[in-house]
Amino acid sequence: MLKVPDHQVAGHKASDGVLGPLIDDSGLFYKPLQNDGRGSNELAFYTTFTSDARIPYHIFGYFPKFYGTKVIEASDGSGLHPHLVLQDIVFSFENPSLMDIKIGSRTWFPQASDDYIDKCFKRDRETSSLSLGFRISGLQMFGTKDSGFWKPQRKLTQNLNSDQAKLLLRKFVSSNMPAESDVCPDSALASNVYGGFTGVLEQLLELKAWFEKQTIYHFYSCSIIIVYEKEEVLNGKSSGAIVKLVDFAHVLEGNGVIDHNFLGGLCSFIKFISEILTSPEENCISSTNGIRT
Amino acid sequence: MLKVPDHQVAGHKASDGVLGPLIDDSGLFYKPLQNDGRGSNELAFYTTFTSDARIPYHIFGYFPKFYGTKVIEASDGSGLHPHLVLQDIVFSFENPSLMDIKIGSRTWFPQASDDYIDKCFKRDRETSSLSLGFRISGLQMFGTKDSGFWKPQRKLTQNLNSDQAKLLLRKFVSSNMPAESDVCPDSALASNVYGGFTGVLEQLLELKAWFEKQTIYHFYSCSIIIVYEKEEVLNGKSSGAIVKLVDFAHVLEGNGVIDHNFLGGLCSFIKFISEILTSPEENCISSTNGIRT
Repeated sequence: MLKVPDHQVAGHKASDGVLGPLIDDSGLFYKPLQNDGRGSNELAFYTTFTSDARIPYHIFGYFPKFYGTKVIEASDGSGLHPHLVLQDIVFSFENPSLMDIKIGSRTWFPQASDDYIDKCFKRDRETSSLSLGFRISGLQMFGTKDSGFWKPQRKLTQNLNSDQAKLLLRKFVSSNMPAESDVCPDSALASNVYGGFTGVLEQLLELKAWFEKQTIYHFYSCSIIIVYEKEEVLNGKSSGAIVKLVDFAHVLEGNGVIDHNFLGGLCSFIKFISEILTSPEENCISSTNGIRT
Repeated sequence: MLKVPDHQVAGHKASDGVLGPLIDDSGLFYKPLQNDGRGSNELAFYTTFTSDARIPYHIFGYFPKFYGTKVIEASDGSGLHPHLVLQDIVFSFENPSLMDIKIGSRTWFPQASDDYIDKCFKRDRETSSLSLGFRISGLQMFGTKDSGFWKPQRKLTQNLNSDQAKLLLRKFVSSNMPAESDVCPDSALASNVYGGFTGVLEQLLELKAWFEKQTIYHFYSCSIIIVYEKEEVLNGKSSGAIVKLVDFAHVLEGNGVIDHNFLGGLCSFIKFISEILTSPEENCISSTNGIRT
């Protein structure tokens, strides 16, 4: 009954020979425990976090539900392997448009080995992490039933300058086909998806308010996932946009200090989203030479 | 008429053979233009910034006033040297208690040379910049007319963990003599200096609100200076606490992105100040083994 997720835009994709996540048809997401300490660290985080009385109730909603671990057949054909059992956050979506944004200008933590720091440092400089405070690790956008999903190559989304990032974040909420790069994105869905009382911006601001206070956890190399249903918006309904944090293999204790690295990157991302809402009509001079699709 | 400032806690101090800032008796501060590009960069910043119509009026108040440049006799005896002419921000204070906090977990900018980045990177890790998002570059606190100023060595304030930083920030607003490290700081001046409508916290929050929006400048290796008059508080008056940004030798263009590095560090500092206000009575278990005075 287990299968490879249809809507994965970042991370290792399960296939023959590759260990990756699996889903079932009841809304569960099985993430293989990585062997090198990252797995045990992520498990420790989920275990501690979900029973942590210091976390405000409304904040739990920004994290996938956690159902323990389960040993199942690994996707790479290597036999039985322990997996985290999590909520499949796109389960209730028909054709989810989704984006994975890795938050923070720095994906490494101070206590890491020099080799690890060097590797991350190089990657942060090559991508937009250092400059923008985040990088778009991947995305997919639903077009039409005929055209299906637009899914730019990851390497084309990770290293954007500010104009290109703004353009891509506009495309993500546009109703005209985003893959046609000479069409100016109309941002037609922005007010529904990014805006509104239950939209992405309000959710991000709620998270920000928590990050301004919480000194419990530091989230390195963690992503925000944004998901919405395009067809719902076009039918005049709410987009059902959700915001979730994922990937906690590098969560550390905060030791009395806020996570200023995550918060800074989150504020930068929020600024991009706000700008699209306050000037949805902004012309797109750079649309033809911006994102290469 | 020029003399060495009485109340300098960070940076090069003018003396025979050392080029440093000078003040006059009319409230002006003469900062020697550094030769290696930093001087011209800081001059360019002041020139552009002070006539930048995009800066909200109330934000100018957080920067020293700028009066151009002047060639005067250098403090190191080397002859005539160009100086920035700035407002002496402690001019109106009798016995200023003051603190210099370098903001940001990262003091280097991405475009810098590898050597410069390595140097700053090492320093950021050795000090509390990387962990706290700021480092206290120096401070002085007025005790009494007899005891004068308490001025811990800079190396003792730059590398604090969160408990030590909290303790030092409490000491800075305590009425019992802070140099006696076995006395628990009473935080007696906290509500006057840090709190209140015109206190430090409100000023920091106003700056934060601007940094959440502004994408014009990125302030690397820039400091916040906090100054107040202890005697005024003890006499039941307002502390006259001021908050100013200083040191703009490494200001860069923002290119459409907020200064997430500065903002993250500022939010971390704000969290410390807020905590002292919300729990001024917190015991000081670590006071005897905290800051070494």
